[in-house]
Amino acid sequence: MKSISDILLQRKSIRKYSSRPLDDNLLHDILEKGCRASTTGNMQVYSIIITRDEDMKKSLLPLHFNQEMVTEAPVLLTFCADFNRFNKWCRQNDAVPGYDNFLSFFTAAADALLVAQTVCVAAESEGLGICYLGTTTYMADKIIEVLELPPGVVPVTAITLGWPDEDPEQVDRLPLESVIHSEVYHDYSEQDIKAFYREKEEREDSRIFIQENNKSTLAQVFTDVRYKKDDNVYFSNVLIKVLQDQGFMNH
Amino acid sequence: MKSISDILLQRKSIRKYSSRPLDDNLLHDILEKGCRASTTGNMQVYSIIITRDEDMKKSLLPLHFNQEMVTEAPVLLTFCADFNRFNKWCRQNDAVPGYDNFLSFFTAAADALLVAQTVCVAAESEGLGICYLGTTTYMADKIIEVLELPPGVVPVTAITLGWPDEDPEQVDRLPLESVIHSEVYHDYSEQDIKAFYREKEEREDSRIFIQENNKSTLAQVFTDVRYKKDDNVYFSNVLIKVLQDQGFMNH
Repeated sequence: MKSISDILLQRKSIRKYSSRPLDDNLLHDILEKGCRASTTGNMQVYSIIITRDEDMKKSLLPLHFNQEMVTEAPVLLTFCADFNRFNKWCRQNDAVPGYDNFLSFFTAAADALLVAQTVCVAAESEGLGICYLGTTTYMADKIIEVLELPPGVVPVTAITLGWPDEDPEQVDRLPLESVIHSEVYHDYSEQDIKAFYREKEEREDSRIFIQENNKSTLAQVFTDVRYKKDDNVYFSNVLIKVLQDQGFMNH
Repeated sequence: MKSISDILLQRKSIRKYSSRPLDDNLLHDILEKGCRASTTGNMQVYSIIITRDEDMKKSLLPLHFNQEMVTEAPVLLTFCADFNRFNKWCRQNDAVPGYDNFLSFFTAAADALLVAQTVCVAAESEGLGICYLGTTTYMADKIIEVLELPPGVVPVTAITLGWPDEDPEQVDRLPLESVIHSEVYHDYSEQDIKAFYREKEEREDSRIFIQENNKSTLAQVFTDVRYKKDDNVYFSNVLIKVLQDQGFMNH
């Protein structure tokens, strides 16, 4: 059995899953561990939607940009910021909740993300594989419809979960010293940026990536292909409208 | 040595720390593990500010509502959404970054929160204790000044970190079935809410909490004392202004 150090250091996202089913008891065990993560004021302002049904997966597939792992993984988990449950509890107990604002959304989103990551570590420590779906916030409005999320509930991330059917190379990371700062933020000189990104830029997979996308630098693959300004602006407005519609912008 | 299951299931936040120093190699080891957490498009759009200096801790103390653990813990880590580094890399590589919008902030915030939680698990697996500081987003504007965060960088959470000098009771959690939903969100009936919150309400510490705060229900302690509407609205506006000032609302 792997040590926790090895699990954390050797982890990689898994996008191909075997047909081996994911036992419900194991899933609950993992979720139970996830819910021991820190939560603001012990309010637990999150909910987790479990998708196993094939038709539900097919409905969610286009909302996650047709990434095949959405239907291939035995389980999809959608983690939501959720003040609906807490607000109901308040109202039933002669208390007037004041959580219809942006701070409360962010608090609940952080709660949900901490649970999500703890679920991932718990799953990976059992030999399961996970992959995050960043598309969740892009298509939050449509996911709300499919998962029937009431006001007060916003999906903030999702993961696919199952037994790995691939063993990919671990992807690179920037040197640790590039993301940590001692005492105050030390802004980056041109030389710093060059040094910190050199290894990434010189990787064979980066060169292939640039070529495949007909770009001249790796950064252009991000700005012009993968995460374009127009898309970011469009999805920003979708997300802000979702926050308004779900009742988190009343201030 | 504890298993990863026990570490996750038995965890608790630690607010009192011994004077035992936290070795820099161990800290780096933990941060290295944290940075293996999933990150959107492998962009790693986060930074971690390490506070060890006593004067820096004293400057941060009031910004974290004078919680003594801020100065007592050997280390404070502030996790920031950070597109500054990535934007600089883009500009140095003939690429025009389009990350000055809300979606990009949320992407970077999620990145930072996943790293934070992985750092916590890594720390706890070494026997260290952590406690999250929710105050980070409330006082983001002032924390930006103290930590000298440039545009593109927003603090989203912080933790205290050190060797535990207490062994508190583990706090309660809602029953797992109250936070999970199968396939679609099953909204809560009055009976559901009663059943799910019964254990919490009947706890001795909840009764004491109600009495100490001169309230008649536990929910009122949250709405009228701990997380009040006026404060939430005030801090919502602070946080949104921070997003504007740091360049994340240009859409």
